[in-house]
Amino acid sequence: MSRFFSEKYKALAPYVPGEQPKDMRYIKLNTNESPFAPPKSVVKAVKEQAGKCNLYSDPTCSALVEKASQVFNVKKTQILPTNGSDEVLNFAFMAFCDKNTPAVFADITYGFYSVFAELNGVPYKTIPLKEDFTIDYREYCGVNATVFIANPNAPTGIALSKAEIEEILRSNPNNVVVIDEAYVDFGGESCVDLINKYDNLLVTQTFSKSRSLAGARLGFGFACESLIADLNAIKYSTNPYNVNRMTMEAGRIALCEQAYFDKKCQEICQTRAYTTAELRRLGFTVLSSKTNFLFVKSPKISGQELYERLKAKGVLVRHFNGERIKEFNRVTIGTKKQMDIFLSCVEEIVKEKQNEKSE
Amino acid sequence: MSRFFSEKYKALAPYVPGEQPKDMRYIKLNTNESPFAPPKSVVKAVKEQAGKCNLYSDPTCSALVEKASQVFNVKKTQILPTNGSDEVLNFAFMAFCDKNTPAVFADITYGFYSVFAELNGVPYKTIPLKEDFTIDYREYCGVNATVFIANPNAPTGIALSKAEIEEILRSNPNNVVVIDEAYVDFGGESCVDLINKYDNLLVTQTFSKSRSLAGARLGFGFACESLIADLNAIKYSTNPYNVNRMTMEAGRIALCEQAYFDKKCQEICQTRAYTTAELRRLGFTVLSSKTNFLFVKSPKISGQELYERLKAKGVLVRHFNGERIKEFNRVTIGTKKQMDIFLSCVEEIVKEKQNEKSE
Repeated sequence: MSRFFSEKYKALAPYVPGEQPKDMRYIKLNTNESPFAPPKSVVKAVKEQAGKCNLYSDPTCSALVEKASQVFNVKKTQILPTNGSDEVLNFAFMAFCDKNTPAVFADITYGFYSVFAELNGVPYKTIPLKEDFTIDYREYCGVNATVFIANPNAPTGIALSKAEIEEILRSNPNNVVVIDEAYVDFGGESCVDLINKYDNLLVTQTFSKSRSLAGARLGFGFACESLIADLNAIKYSTNPYNVNRMTMEAGRIALCEQAYFDKKCQEICQTRAYTTAELRRLGFTVLSSKTNFLFVKSPKISGQELYERLKAKGVLVRHFNGERIKEFNRVTIGTKKQMDIFLSCVEEIVKEKQNEKSE
Repeated sequence: MSRFFSEKYKALAPYVPGEQPKDMRYIKLNTNESPFAPPKSVVKAVKEQAGKCNLYSDPTCSALVEKASQVFNVKKTQILPTNGSDEVLNFAFMAFCDKNTPAVFADITYGFYSVFAELNGVPYKTIPLKEDFTIDYREYCGVNATVFIANPNAPTGIALSKAEIEEILRSNPNNVVVIDEAYVDFGGESCVDLINKYDNLLVTQTFSKSRSLAGARLGFGFACESLIADLNAIKYSTNPYNVNRMTMEAGRIALCEQAYFDKKCQEICQTRAYTTAELRRLGFTVLSSKTNFLFVKSPKISGQELYERLKAKGVLVRHFNGERIKEFNRVTIGTKKQMDIFLSCVEEIVKEKQNEKSE
């Protein structure tokens, strides 16, 4: 830290992204990416745009927004594309929270919410997940604060129903409710169509998971026109050209390839069911997931040790050190082949552990 | 604006980017882009990355930073790549200004500085340019505020010398001085090497102008390690994957193509000299430019009218409505061919104007 750094940021504890070690080739199951490359049509479109990169991107993202309005069946003025969904989430903390309007979110959820709150000087309250790691929607009703819910939640993978989200929306008419649908395409119920019914709803989505574009950085906010206008005021005061030319076109073409991505999502869901069954067979506790990852723990080995032993065998999973979750690991669903390697490593580790104990 | 928008942003007057009308094909001389496409090697590299976009980009941008450290002869820890240089400028307003540390910049300069100050609740003072639109560096000495200077300045195109910047740095040892070198490659003197001498210096650069990558969005901050650490704390609390995979590699390869860009910069400088001479022949006042644009006015036609008449003829230039500069237009230097069309349009307009007066 320099002697010039503003007092207001001195206590920041920045977000820590999943590791990307370069010492060997790993099977990467630690950042919830898609194991499937984007379709060829996306690569082709990106190449065409690359040749035109001497010209600025369209700050209104009009071609992308036009296509998205068709796919999501909302108006063009109800969409904001951003540099990953982290950007629209940060904009939401800026626009809809302040000293008088605190934020509220679960104690165990996407780790960035508390970072955004700290960054923006926003007071916040966390609501503990229930013992079984579910969210009780009633605890978010009438909270008099801006609500942030990842649905399905991370790192648990557990989803609320649309009817439950509606109860939260109805009971907080004077506060914005942000539903972060990063993982919705793997079995959750989307609330995007509710933006026409509730003027206090902001839904965020990302192209990083189901749409195979984590490395391109593209997210969306969906909300009524006036909320999107607020977010645009922030965007045009921050970085009007926030989405670059290549990503914009990659996103547009990805939206034209719905059948490809639907098929890949189905494949992930099948592999998820298979991996869940296999882990349970090995004695693991596996939370019921509606996402492209599993949250798992073993009675035979600590979360930290399993993470380390998997890494030594070339498999990366994500371990969080929080009090209630430190015995768990979050495991991204890769291809069937990747999961078979993961499972055989897990089986080996469990056996090694038993042998060490009996020695 | 919605009823949920935070009080602190209600008075925001967002930045207005240059227009991108789609009603016809224009010669676009209004946003200071390069008229030259990026080299083929960049397009090829982008295509390769596009196929890997299912995986997140490297948040540390290590390959790009490694190359940049060679090209700019600084340490890797002295570089921060960002989503366009607007992002690093915003980070600088966040990190190095606050209620107790105001910002200071010229009254006529990059329009985004005041927007960033407003966005971040930073008090600021503007220092009027001299009558001839130059900056008197002495007015920035010992100001007890964070200094922002575009060097060369926009929209005037006029540059300070490195020796003058050093005076400003020396006389403000307890404040950060930000030198925005967006246009430095067209004839300015870069201060990047001074980061080893002054711990209060932050230099920003962009790939949008001389490196033909406006549409890819890439900027850099250069400073001593501790200032870069501060900016990284902001970055990792905002958007750790701020630079996408394709842009990162486009930037790296662009840094390998120095000879190509040097040649293109020379070409721009030659075309600038030619356009300056031609406009002066037509009676225009043309400020002495060290950038890829000219700031010009005619005694025969108002700034607004010239802008409108050029647009009607299919040539876009940038007109600003500020009191001291409303008679000027900012004209990007395109190819020789584009400038010949621009010049013949200007000549036509001046003649039309004379005919109208004599009728």
